Amino acid sequence: MEWLVRTHNRLPADTPAAERERLRAAERGRAMELRAEGVLRKLWRTPGSTGTVALYECRDATHLHDVLSSLPVFPWLEVSVEPLATHPQEAHAAALAAAHGSHDHSEGYDDQPV
Amino acid sequence: MEWLVRTHNRLPADTPAAERERLRAAERGRAMELRAEGVLRKLWRTPGSTGTVALYECRDATHLHDVLSSLPVFPWLEVSVEPLATHPQEAHAAALAAAHGSHDHSEGYDDQPV
Amino acid sequence: MEWLVRTHNRLPADTPAAERERLRAAERGRAMELRAEGVLRKLWRTPGSTGTVALYECRDATHLHDVLSSLPVFPWLEVSVEPLATHPQEAHAAALAAAHGSHDHSEGYDDQPV
Amino acid sequence: MEWLVRTHNRLPADTPAAERERLRAAERGRAMELRAEGVLRKLWRTPGSTGTVALYECRDATHLHDVLSSLPVFPWLEVSVEPLATHPQEAHAAALAAAHGSHDHSEGYDDQPV
Amino acid sequence: MEWLVRTHNRLPADTPAAERERLRAAERGRAMELRAEGVLRKLWRTPGSTGTVALYECRDATHLHDVLSSLPVFPWLEVSVEPLATHPQEAHAAALAAAHGSHDHSEGYDDQPV
Amino acid sequence: MEWLVRTHNRLPADTPAAERERLRAAERGRAMELRAEGVLRKLWRTPGSTGTVALYECRDATHLHDVLSSLPVFPWLEVSVEPLATHPQEAHAAALAAAHGSHDHSEGYDDQPV
Amino acid sequence: MEWLVRTHNRLPADTPAAERERLRAAERGRAMELRAEGVLRKLWRTPGSTGTVALYECRDATHLHDVLSSLPVFPWLEVSVEPLATHPQEAHAAALAAAHGSHDHSEGYDDQPV
Amino acid sequence: MEWLVRTHNRLPADTPAAERERLRAAERGRAMELRAEGVLRKLWRTPGSTGTVALYECRDATHLHDVLSSLPVFPWLEVSVEPLATHPQEAHAAALAAAHGSHDHSEGYDDQPV
Amino acid sequence: MEWLVRTHNRLPADTPAAERERLRAAERGRAMELRAEGVLRKLWRTPGSTGTVALYECRDATHLHDVLSSLPVFPWLEVSVEPLATHPQEAHAAALAAAHGSHDHSEGYDDQPV
Amino acid sequence: MEWLVRTHNRLPADTPAAERERLRAAERGRAMELRAEGVLRKLWRTPGSTGTVALYECRDATHLHDVLSSLPVFPWLEVSVEPLATHPQEAHAAALAAAHGSHDHSEGYDDQPV
Repeated sequence: MEWLVRTHNRLPADTPAAERERLRAAERGRAMELRAEGVLRKLWRTPGSTGTVALYECRDATHLHDVLSSLPVFPWLEVSVEPLATHPQEAHAAALAAAHGSHDHSEGYDDQPV
Repeated sequence: MEWLVRTHNRLPADTPAAERERLRAAERGRAMELRAEGVLRKLWRTPGSTGTVALYECRDATHLHDVLSSLPVFPWLEVSVEPLATHPQEAHAAALAAAHGSHDHSEGYDDQPV
Repeated sequence: MEWLVRTHNRLPADTPAAERERLRAAERGRAMELRAEGVLRKLWRTPGSTGTVALYECRDATHLHDVLSSLPVFPWLEVSVEPLATHPQEAHAAALAAAHGSHDHSEGYDDQPV
Repeated sequence: MEWLVRTHNRLPADTPAAERERLRAAERGRAMELRAEGVLRKLWRTPGSTGTVALYECRDATHLHDVLSSLPVFPWLEVSVEPLATHPQEAHAAALAAAHGSHDHSEGYDDQPV
Repeated sequence: MEWLVRTHNRLPADTPAAERERLRAAERGRAMELRAEGVLRKLWRTPGSTGTVALYECRDATHLHDVLSSLPVFPWLEVSVEPLATHPQEAHAAALAAAHGSHDHSEGYDDQPV
Repeated sequence: MEWLVRTHNRLPADTPAAERERLRAAERGRAMELRAEGVLRKLWRTPGSTGTVALYECRDATHLHDVLSSLPVFPWLEVSVEPLATHPQEAHAAALAAAHGSHDHSEGYDDQPV
Repeated sequence: MEWLVRTHNRLPADTPAAERERLRAAERGRAMELRAEGVLRKLWRTPGSTGTVALYECRDATHLHDVLSSLPVFPWLEVSVEPLATHPQEAHAAALAAAHGSHDHSEGYDDQPV
Repeated sequence: MEWLVRTHNRLPADTPAAERERLRAAERGRAMELRAEGVLRKLWRTPGSTGTVALYECRDATHLHDVLSSLPVFPWLEVSVEPLATHPQEAHAAALAAAHGSHDHSEGYDDQPV
Repeated sequence: MEWLVRTHNRLPADTPAAERERLRAAERGRAMELRAEGVLRKLWRTPGSTGTVALYECRDATHLHDVLSSLPVFPWLEVSVEPLATHPQEAHAAALAAAHGSHDHSEGYDDQPV
Repeated sequence: MEWLVRTHNRLPADTPAAERERLRAAERGRAMELRAEGVLRKLWRTPGSTGTVALYECRDATHLHDVLSSLPVFPWLEVSVEPLATHPQEAHAAALAAAHGSHDHSEGYDDQPV
């Protein structure tokens, strides 16, 4: 199931640089693990802020909570999650693309490794 | 440039079924054109509502406005757009995946047809 | 997966009584079907309004959307859904109750027919 | 009377681990007492946050306040309570289930120990 | 149990005067019944609007809903209810007043001089 | 003139217990004075929070401000005030009650049984 | 007692011009009466809207409600009222001005032509 | 040009009394200067809070900003400004008053000493 | 003085095309007049909506109101205005540019025709 | 592409003056660089606050984020960005001005000195 997850990082501005860098590295490491598992699908920045918008693939809300609370900066994160329902057009578009043997730019999400 | 576009369809509940179906077919047709152009990348439904969340790829806000105002149901749509900035982790993840020759599930968006 | 679903019924106040009654009966019929399927678990009223709060059990957001959009009054409903994650205390409480052979009042949700 | 109670835990992120653990254990202990009394009926987590959604059974608002203010982390909790009115469908569903001798999955709440 | 109930009357401005008057008389009649039952305790106007703030005494949220939905203008009312918990000071004040045989002004709004 | 006054107590959670108790006692003392003057008419708790809802009788906004700013915890209070206009039904109800010599339950909140 | 009163005029845009003009003339007439009574002290426009901000002098909220509900366009007005408490600086400024025999520009409200 | 300026004073509650008094005296001094210049026309208190509502006369937004940022407590003030447009009724009322030689209570703002 | 003006056009979706076109042409005509007067400086579209953001140069709020209320679609516009204060950096930048004889891209607003 | 960027500076009020001045100078220096690059086009102050409204020219959201996060006070800034779409009237106005050889005050942004 797909989720849109929005975060704001409230790590105090006066956090020592070393600690900030340690957390950033740990955060990146954990994110790479989640990407490898196919859980973290895409990550964007909200321009002008420490916020992010991300797309996650998780079985359900309990799985999603376990994933998010495993992030090193979780104690300082303000998080809101939004469940996404599949739109019938997606199935229709994928079928069309398959029929035309063409590559549907929107496949991205369910792009099976060739 | 990537955009997160949220819509709520305010087409009155008492719109005649035939007109509603005409608009739905026209909307689907236009959406397929935008997919073929690589402009509409992904479309989800907000569960329990006539709302949608979509990912668009448009040069800038003017291009995005022209695209959205070309949708047949535009006069009844309440739309909010959110610009998305690329997160440095994406580049990092893509590089890692390329190095490992593995398929990065998150490539979806910059997935070039093989 | 469990969902908290909140609705406000915007059926116009001047809707003819017969039509209102037809919709109410159809709504109740559909609700009974959903209860039998174990999808609609509990339904409350928001005191003083036409709103309801309900607990649903659905596989994911797509299943939930299909269920909600099957309700006869869906075109007039304002709906907001909230995904619920299992709290570790629930598992702990169920285990304690089983150990004491006592009946845990809170089992309600995962109460298997004896 | 049933209440939907929403909490956000504002315990500062830099609270010493030992104190955090002490409070967590005390909180769990108190919760078990409230379950045994049939006051705390069900507890969920809001995915991605330290928030919870819970269902309480309390005589009135005064009883509910006494219960909530007895929680060890109460001084750091942001709480909102929502009174729930019984929906006539619940009575109807229970009657149907009794008539068919079948188990109504939605009984959960008024499930008498067998 | 005491409730603070806030209403906004959305009866369309172009409702015929006769119908408006019929509803007003029916509303006043019903209110008098509720006062006689000790359910409606006090009613104020929100200055400058068709809104009211009222104090109700009802067993629980279900009783309160039945009372509010019995009001003739209920289909056009926007209602929000707020449960009120007894403050320990009230008991303390009543005890002091009894002990001093004096009359505690806070007992009644239009407390008749003994 | 009657006022509905809502407060949230933002006294920091880590305030020493002795200071908290001193303030509580001073607050109660001041409240009793205001009750004796007929200024503080009724006080409730917002269930689950340190908030209160109260009914005050003050000549005007200036008098109300002087009263509220005289409360010992005023520096930590978030206050919102709502002016209440007399509803014509109240006069009507009082007249009816007087005519019937009966006791109008709405006269006092804790109307002592005759 | 002074009040800041904010209004938004929701008279439908397609109201016949003659009716709109009738209401405007009636509104102005009523306003002049209220000025003569010293009730309406000052009236401004919210730039770019049909809204107004006004300063009223009324005994209490009940008097204010009677005044506002006497305005011809009241059925289409969205009104919010804000009670204003006298600031101690005003008294101080008036005293200073009197002592210096000078004209205190801020006297505006109670300015008697010298 | 007239402005409605709303402030909330966020000076921390635990600010030493001496510093608080120094700031209060400096604030009053500056306010008196602004009154003498005809810039600060009227000042009210928001009942129950440290907030104020004031009427300023400033050439434009830049002049207003310079004035507000010159207030000693400016670093702790949360300020919102609202531009006010002259209402045609004011001119009409002033003309009427002049014609009748009577005193228009509402002249306050543009009252030129005769 | 500079103003940021935000509008949302609430012209009903079912307005006849001819009337919509008449209003659009009248609106454009009026806008050109305002540009020639140096009042309308810049106009943008809010992407995905019928809203606009514009920069106006008007003496004060009264002048701004007269300008906005002269727009043909004013009766259907929801407008919010924001006064802008000159930032000291602008003067600094203009001085620097003049000293270097270079063209300061940001001069745009106070660009006098050479 | 043009962006409207709104900032609120949350630098704590008790920041040492020297540090505040260092940041202010660094901020001005960076702003001048961005002006020279044609990225920062115009900067205003929100009257009465430490907030600013600015107009930026950036390729896309990623470029805009890099620019904003390069500002020395970025860690203390609350930022919201708004993408602006070109309005067809602008092109129309520019064409008219060119045809009449006159100077269109609104050219501001793309004003090449004649």
